[in-house]
Amino acid sequence: MISAQQALYIVLSRSERLGVERLPIEKALGRMLAEKIRSDMDTPPFDRSAMDGFAMNSNDRSAAYKVVDDIPAGKMPKRQIGQGECARIMTGAPLPPGADKVVKVEDTQLISRHLIRIKHFDNKPNVSWRGEDVRKGEIVLKAGIKIRAQEVAILATFGKRKVKVFRYPRVGVISTGSELVEPGKKPGPGKIRNSNSFMLLAQLKRLGIDGIYLGIVRDNFRETVKNINKAIKVSDILLLTGGVSVGDYDFVKEAIKKAGIKLHFNKIAVQPGKPTSFGTKGRKMVFGLPGNPVSSLFIFDLLVRPAIDRMVGRKAKQHLGKSILAADFERRHTDREQYVPVIQSDSRVRPIKFHGSAHMQALTKANGLMRIKRGIKRLLKGATVDVRPI
Amino acid sequence: MISAQQALYIVLSRSERLGVERLPIEKALGRMLAEKIRSDMDTPPFDRSAMDGFAMNSNDRSAAYKVVDDIPAGKMPKRQIGQGECARIMTGAPLPPGADKVVKVEDTQLISRHLIRIKHFDNKPNVSWRGEDVRKGEIVLKAGIKIRAQEVAILATFGKRKVKVFRYPRVGVISTGSELVEPGKKPGPGKIRNSNSFMLLAQLKRLGIDGIYLGIVRDNFRETVKNINKAIKVSDILLLTGGVSVGDYDFVKEAIKKAGIKLHFNKIAVQPGKPTSFGTKGRKMVFGLPGNPVSSLFIFDLLVRPAIDRMVGRKAKQHLGKSILAADFERRHTDREQYVPVIQSDSRVRPIKFHGSAHMQALTKANGLMRIKRGIKRLLKGATVDVRPI
Repeated sequence: MISAQQALYIVLSRSERLGVERLPIEKALGRMLAEKIRSDMDTPPFDRSAMDGFAMNSNDRSAAYKVVDDIPAGKMPKRQIGQGECARIMTGAPLPPGADKVVKVEDTQLISRHLIRIKHFDNKPNVSWRGEDVRKGEIVLKAGIKIRAQEVAILATFGKRKVKVFRYPRVGVISTGSELVEPGKKPGPGKIRNSNSFMLLAQLKRLGIDGIYLGIVRDNFRETVKNINKAIKVSDILLLTGGVSVGDYDFVKEAIKKAGIKLHFNKIAVQPGKPTSFGTKGRKMVFGLPGNPVSSLFIFDLLVRPAIDRMVGRKAKQHLGKSILAADFERRHTDREQYVPVIQSDSRVRPIKFHGSAHMQALTKANGLMRIKRGIKRLLKGATVDVRPI
Repeated sequence: MISAQQALYIVLSRSERLGVERLPIEKALGRMLAEKIRSDMDTPPFDRSAMDGFAMNSNDRSAAYKVVDDIPAGKMPKRQIGQGECARIMTGAPLPPGADKVVKVEDTQLISRHLIRIKHFDNKPNVSWRGEDVRKGEIVLKAGIKIRAQEVAILATFGKRKVKVFRYPRVGVISTGSELVEPGKKPGPGKIRNSNSFMLLAQLKRLGIDGIYLGIVRDNFRETVKNINKAIKVSDILLLTGGVSVGDYDFVKEAIKKAGIKLHFNKIAVQPGKPTSFGTKGRKMVFGLPGNPVSSLFIFDLLVRPAIDRMVGRKAKQHLGKSILAADFERRHTDREQYVPVIQSDSRVRPIKFHGSAHMQALTKANGLMRIKRGIKRLLKGATVDVRPI
């Protein structure tokens, strides 16, 4: 049985960037930029007042200054500023010719309607000089970076209404199992409601992806093969949940093969999540996730999320942080890497009561999964542990 | 001039939960739950096999067992299991009457078509007992919690297709300034492109909110009042950006008042972001954000985000973390609390080159804003500082 690390390596070695699409900048938040962006103009585009005040020449120390112009933001100055003259100017407005300084309004005094005096003459120009932030033609954003709010502002500033980003995968979600009914229905005898699909759609949504829900498929071999074939046509990644254990009724592994998908593994030495399979058909990926909801949630984070990260141009990470164990921990079997639900606060973690991989209720009380590596039997209070926030 | 803390206090004292809406669970991710959820059935709903294997009675130690039934998941068992009998059973299938244990398939050996032998008989029942996770009528989710993927799974499990959550605010965004043109246009002399609106829409989007973009309003008093009046009708929060400084052309403060909005403050002792105003009209809020993009980005995080957090039922936090300063820092003026762009890695921060509040380019290189409190002149390498990730 391969380890979690080997499984991740196999998955990532098959994960490639999906290619590029152009999006309006208001839809590009969180995406990875797929082109470099150059400035199409100097920034500021002109010498610009950084204050509301009066524009004048810094060498002109007159007793009073005649206000010869009035320059709001967005207007070009009408005339030259000479000796003993100034122009009323607003923040963001272009400096008039002849001026190289703005005295802020608080440092001036109005003597008459068109005459001012300076109360306090300092050395600050209070001008943002043309091109001081960015020169025309300069690269303002490098390809490969993540688009945050400030990058959206830069794109707008330099006139990019649409921008090239790495495409998100289309992710199909199928639940398999004759015991499943949809959440809107009351389960009959022996049935339970389908919760995994909605959970996986929520996990995808957290990554910015609107998954494609493809419904429940009964435990019928022909129907399962048919549905996998159909689903793989509309998906870059297909998530199957349920039906990936060892029994007679677990068609999914065979159905995956029958659908022409190359199976790379069908078991991982990890707890929960052992019955996990992974296959590819060309560049398309199929994950057979365990039917137990806790396992399914966890394997998504362990394998599917890093694959998606890489496909969209992000760094594929395990998103594990360090924490301190707040109580001793011991386990019976040590042959698998294990993830245990914990409550983390102030960098200390405490495992919570957990009945096993069907016990989703425990995960609503947890905010992390603590990793215990293969071979480790006992961890003492105070040990440093790896925790993935959930 | 009031401090950042006072400004935040004033804003938060006006921020109330907005009320409740019902959403389909697939749209409820990230929302705060506004009702408590009770289980409508025991979970598991029946005694259920936790393994693929053979169901039998734990007191029955026969040499061989006749396979008298075949129970896939989703099917009810057809008959009672007697002495020397067992039923083939799949993970998730209901335990047949007479059985209280499942021997996993790996621990058994097929002798003939309908006869098995047990290789290894352990004490584990391998059964998930009815109600062991949750009892019918029990509260499974408390009101006020955040809906994550695992809570979506719980909602689906207990048949909630729609769920009550706290409503998100409708947030209108207006840019003011005659110097602005939309990003799709080439700015003429004295003009610049409108980047703040797109940045604010991105900041809203990060919080899960689709803001309402209401365009650019010229520096014309009547037009500004009219637009504020119109905007406040469709918004719970109105964000105005630009035009909130001290000069003649800064109508916005007066226009806010003219529109019947009560102004609570129009300046904060914070750098960048001094020309920030805040008003209310009934339960509606108006923020006059500075025109400089860096200030606008920062004030959104300082004041608007906590207000939204509280309105949607989240805890209003400043989202500051601790970090260690990697180089000495000194500043000239100490009369305002200041936020400085920094690069943070491995819990160490380094301030970056920054020309002031119009220098958005600097923020694309930063991943945090470091807080320097009022009165602090110099911080030495190794000091513990507060940093907000951006």
